[in-house]
Amino acid sequence: MWAQHRIELAPRPRGFHLVTDEVLRGVPELGEVRVGLLHLLIQHTSASLTLNENASPDVRRDFETWVNASVPEEFAWTHTLEGPDDMPAHVKASLMGPSLTLPVRDGRPALGTWQGIYLCEHRDRGGSRAVVATLHGEG
Amino acid sequence: MWAQHRIELAPRPRGFHLVTDEVLRGVPELGEVRVGLLHLLIQHTSASLTLNENASPDVRRDFETWVNASVPEEFAWTHTLEGPDDMPAHVKASLMGPSLTLPVRDGRPALGTWQGIYLCEHRDRGGSRAVVATLHGEG
Amino acid sequence: MWAQHRIELAPRPRGFHLVTDEVLRGVPELGEVRVGLLHLLIQHTSASLTLNENASPDVRRDFETWVNASVPEEFAWTHTLEGPDDMPAHVKASLMGPSLTLPVRDGRPALGTWQGIYLCEHRDRGGSRAVVATLHGEG
Repeated sequence: MWAQHRIELAPRPRGFHLVTDEVLRGVPELGEVRVGLLHLLIQHTSASLTLNENASPDVRRDFETWVNASVPEEFAWTHTLEGPDDMPAHVKASLMGPSLTLPVRDGRPALGTWQGIYLCEHRDRGGSRAVVATLHGEG
Repeated sequence: MWAQHRIELAPRPRGFHLVTDEVLRGVPELGEVRVGLLHLLIQHTSASLTLNENASPDVRRDFETWVNASVPEEFAWTHTLEGPDDMPAHVKASLMGPSLTLPVRDGRPALGTWQGIYLCEHRDRGGSRAVVATLHGEG
Repeated sequence: MWAQHRIELAPRPRGFHLVTDEVLRGVPELGEVRVGLLHLLIQHTSASLTLNENASPDVRRDFETWVNASVPEEFAWTHTLEGPDDMPAHVKASLMGPSLTLPVRDGRPALGTWQGIYLCEHRDRGGSRAVVATLHGEG
C-alpha cells in the first residue's frame, strides 16, 4: 500500500525542535503497515530534518550553538539580499539534509530508543513548514 | 512499477550545479507514476547530491566558498597521493551526501517551489558523473 | 518482496570503519532481487552511516581527524553529563546522517567501484551498534 500526505508543521523559532509526534499524527495509515518505509521530505531550502536525541533540550540547544559557529552569519557571503540569516540557512539545510527515510515495523517507525525527528529551523522567522510524507509497505 | 536507469551527467567544473532537468530527463517513466518515490545515488566518493535553492547562482557560489573554508586543502591530511583536492572532496561528499530520495506525485517530483537538485562537484577535474535513478510507485 | 532484519554490528573503536560485507551478510535475500532498494538505519544518536572510499585506511583516518577538528570536544557545550565525547558525537551523527538508501540491481547494491559503507563510531566506547535493514524490490 501507498499513502502520501502533506503535513503543515506549526511555525517554530530558529533552532532544533522535536516533532516526532506531530509528524506521525500526519500519517494515519502507519498502523496498517507491518513492514515498510516512511519517507519525509521538507519542501524548503532553509529548514531541514534530522534524527537525534529525543530526551534532553540541552542537546537541541547545543546543535543550534554549533551550527551557528560553523556556518556563521559573518562570512564572505554574496547572496545577502534576503537577510543575514538566509544564506547560512541554505548551507545548514544541506548539512542536515532535506529528508529522512525510516523503517516501519508493526505499525510504527523502527527507531532506536533515543531517536526522535528534529525539525531544524534555520531562519529567524521561517513560518510554517511543509513536509511530504510518503508511506509504503505491506499490511 | 519499478524502473532503474544509469544517468551520465555532463562533466562540470568544481562547484555546485543545478541538474534537476538533466536528471529528470533520464527517468522517462516518471510521468506514469501517480504516487511513489524517486531515489538517486551518485556512484562516486568525491561528488555528491543535495537539494537547495534553484534560482540564484549566488547561492551555489556561496556553497562552494563555505565548503572550501570548512574542509580546506591545507589541513593535517595524510591521504594526499591523489592531489590536494582529493581528500577534501571525500569529506565534502559525505557532508552533502551521496543520495536523494524524492516523493513523486502525479508524474513529477513533489519538490518545494524553490528546491532543485544540485550536483556538488568536489574535484578540480571530476569528469562525467554517474547517477543511478530508481523509480518506484503506482500508476 | 519485502525483507527486514536487525543487524548487530561488532563493537569498534571511535573512528570510521568499512562495514560493507558485515552489513550485506545480514540481508540474505539480497540475491533474489533484480531491481529494488536497500535501506539502512542505525538506531543510535552517536554513530552514523555514510558511503565513501573503500580502499585506503588513510581516508578513514583523515575523516576522523577532520570531524574532530570541526566538532571539537572543547566547545560551548551545555550537554556534558555523559562525557566530553557525547555531545560532539550527537552533532557528528547528524552531519554524516543516520541512514543510507542503496539501489539494488541483479542481486547486489549498485555502488560505484570505490564506494563502501562506513560505520562512523563517534563515541569512545560505543559498543555494538544496531542497524535495521529493509530490502524491497522485485525478483
